[in-house]
Amino acid sequence: MTPPNATAIITSATLGHEATDMNFKDKQLAASRKNRSLLCVGLDPDPELMPGIDIFQFNREIIDATSDLVCAYKPNLAFYEASGIEGLRAMEKTLAHVPSGIPVIGDAKRGDIASTSKAYARALFDVFGFDAVTVNPYLGHDSVSPFTDYGDKGVFILCKTSNAGASDFQEALVCESEGGKGARPLFESVALKANMWNTQGNIGLVVGATYPEQLRKVRQLCPEIQLLVPGIGAQGGDLASTIRNGVDAHWQNLIITCSRQVLYASRERDFATAARREALKIREQINEYLAAG
Amino acid sequence: MTPPNATAIITSATLGHEATDMNFKDKQLAASRKNRSLLCVGLDPDPELMPGIDIFQFNREIIDATSDLVCAYKPNLAFYEASGIEGLRAMEKTLAHVPSGIPVIGDAKRGDIASTSKAYARALFDVFGFDAVTVNPYLGHDSVSPFTDYGDKGVFILCKTSNAGASDFQEALVCESEGGKGARPLFESVALKANMWNTQGNIGLVVGATYPEQLRKVRQLCPEIQLLVPGIGAQGGDLASTIRNGVDAHWQNLIITCSRQVLYASRERDFATAARREALKIREQINEYLAAG
Repeated sequence: MTPPNATAIITSATLGHEATDMNFKDKQLAASRKNRSLLCVGLDPDPELMPGIDIFQFNREIIDATSDLVCAYKPNLAFYEASGIEGLRAMEKTLAHVPSGIPVIGDAKRGDIASTSKAYARALFDVFGFDAVTVNPYLGHDSVSPFTDYGDKGVFILCKTSNAGASDFQEALVCESEGGKGARPLFESVALKANMWNTQGNIGLVVGATYPEQLRKVRQLCPEIQLLVPGIGAQGGDLASTIRNGVDAHWQNLIITCSRQVLYASRERDFATAARREALKIREQINEYLAAG
Repeated sequence: MTPPNATAIITSATLGHEATDMNFKDKQLAASRKNRSLLCVGLDPDPELMPGIDIFQFNREIIDATSDLVCAYKPNLAFYEASGIEGLRAMEKTLAHVPSGIPVIGDAKRGDIASTSKAYARALFDVFGFDAVTVNPYLGHDSVSPFTDYGDKGVFILCKTSNAGASDFQEALVCESEGGKGARPLFESVALKANMWNTQGNIGLVVGATYPEQLRKVRQLCPEIQLLVPGIGAQGGDLASTIRNGVDAHWQNLIITCSRQVLYASRERDFATAARREALKIREQINEYLAAG
């Protein structure tokens, strides 16, 4: 089995503006093909780890150093909100700086009752302009649909997250009835419901690389859905098993996201060069695993 | 059974600055006693429902008209983020305008892996200055503890939310083992875990008034925990059963939150007067039910 783009030429050109009318999935796939990459870089600026420069300057250098190596960027809103309004202004400037052919996933993990989720969707899609978001499924279908109603945007539902506490509820054994028949962990129910809700084809799932067996199971339950996989690098997830368990039948629909390992490869002034080196290394490792099939 | 403050004198004075060193629970209780109120007004400014004024002006008039009638305010961050950075600036100004004796709950429903939840906690507590927040339990204990680590702050964990979709996962029957023994709905597991995690006494739960039986059950499982109850008014929850099922043995630790019914009692320029009338009515109804015991 050979990945379709294993022989494509690496290009350092940023992607053109013509790409912006595509829906998220097409845009992400185009970026992935062009940059021959399943790697998404998480833009999580942490003042404690950054070399004494401001958030936007940090992000700009990271983006300039890696935009030919990624299939998406993923700012986590927490790291901007932690700097208050100035942080959110830096987030706006960061989004404006990302080359238009590279989709940006707003890692927001939002979810509320319908009228409130609608306001969050407006904030994330219309105001901040993300191409996709992450949402939390705990409140159910009417908390998710205000996001999926934006048919051209991507919506990644948290399924099995990468942290230790993920097991508290996501592994809770859910049974169909008091008798315990057909018991399955909650994250599998979430995966099945997400499949059912995916009438517009714009739903994906978040599954942590730190749980390879659960990743395999989710891919089995949802053969065609996009998977966003954090947890390699700083969190310890294994890259080879992530690829093996996460790709679909066409070796696609897998987005491997990495933040700290890339952003803070060096904590000195050469952070951007170090980030490029690290991103290049991860992209090549991924492509080698794909080529080895 | 008589509620402890049924005979207290209603005062229109705002609460003094000396209150700010108390922890959330004490501050909330003091406001509740002083204003003889279990009512929390949700500050959810929606441009489509507001009479053509800006968010801060709207909130300021609502606060000025109701601050002697409430035990807390609860801005939902979605309605500020939906107006982008200007909206968040209005939220900052709103928080600064709330009399210092009235606690403010940031309805944010956040939750992420530990390092990210820590950034959210910093944003909500240190930067924006909320006295309490709502958090989503889906990611488990290490997503909640960065919030509860702020011992003087309140943390309301979503348990059974007020919306229809709440049943998708929150009612999922969780069994201890494949055999289905000891099966209970997921929201009950969340309540029990919240109790277990409540070593600092600053955890509360969110339970929708639209599910009175579940509210009764949560109070039974967690006799002493603070409950934040949305869903009366626009969402159709019944006030009498909310009080009966929600109060603790001392007729306390219940915060009944109401947004649209108060904020948009009139959609004309007299909205603040109408909001006061509505808030007064709800507070009095609550106190009558409490007095009738």
